[in-house]
Amino acid sequence: MSPPPETQGYKFNHTMIRVKDPKVSLKFYTEILGMELIAEHPANGFTLYFLGYDHSKGTASAEEKSEGRFDREAILELTHNHGTESDPNFAGYASGNTEPGRGFGHIAFAVPNVEEACARLESLGVPFKKKLTEGTMKNIAFALDPDGYWVEIIPRHFTP
Amino acid sequence: MSPPPETQGYKFNHTMIRVKDPKVSLKFYTEILGMELIAEHPANGFTLYFLGYDHSKGTASAEEKSEGRFDREAILELTHNHGTESDPNFAGYASGNTEPGRGFGHIAFAVPNVEEACARLESLGVPFKKKLTEGTMKNIAFALDPDGYWVEIIPRHFTP
Repeated sequence: MSPPPETQGYKFNHTMIRVKDPKVSLKFYTEILGMELIAEHPANGFTLYFLGYDHSKGTASAEEKSEGRFDREAILELTHNHGTESDPNFAGYASGNTEPGRGFGHIAFAVPNVEEACARLESLGVPFKKKLTEGTMKNIAFALDPDGYWVEIIPRHFTP
Repeated sequence: MSPPPETQGYKFNHTMIRVKDPKVSLKFYTEILGMELIAEHPANGFTLYFLGYDHSKGTASAEEKSEGRFDREAILELTHNHGTESDPNFAGYASGNTEPGRGFGHIAFAVPNVEEACARLESLGVPFKKKLTEGTMKNIAFALDPDGYWVEIIPRHFTP
């Protein structure tokens, strides 16, 4: 079945997750996973951070990247509700993979070399839900981001 | 700061959510939102469905699209744990936006014309968490998918 013509030009633009402390989450998604912080949008009581890989191969300005962030794919939006990072009573966010109600599963990063990528994550102290050597799927790993969200590491040329 | 060279070629490949009934979810994401079902991967007790917009502008075969699904961006993976669709005791999945532990927020679709897109969703009977006319942001809406996940509808040329 062909897509309905009314949906022409639709794009799966972004995925949003809430994070406790933007400082550690931004470090994780930029310095460890290599995304770029494209825009920062402070609002009343919260700040939104938009991250993505550079689609322009270095040719776009920071302003062009920021302005174009809704006209592309694969943006990760991090929502920080101000105060959670220092609130001793904040229980943390559910990763989506625990009961009751587990629903959201994970986000996934496809990499050219999954062994190299996982070795680097380990060397950077990133914890894993499932290392490459664990379980039955030896070419997929699940790292954990600072809030405990599952981050799948998968080969770009994966064949299940 | 430039991305670490070790992360060259990394892609934000997919987002995974669990769904109760693939029949209604596939209808929602293909017939209503216009994604294509690119691959279906049955496993022991569950089935994975991979959806995405066609990046090839109609030039790729179904096999090429399926094989290339880990080497691109903006894939939506739906996990169906067999039996939930007919289990009267299944309580449904948490959307991520309720306490306790609300963490996952939403997925977002950027569209050329947000008024037309929302009018069409309404005419198709899709419920909304926030219609365009509600709240302070008049150019963003949040529809609800069959499991209650929030699906943001946003203009491709959005300016906050």
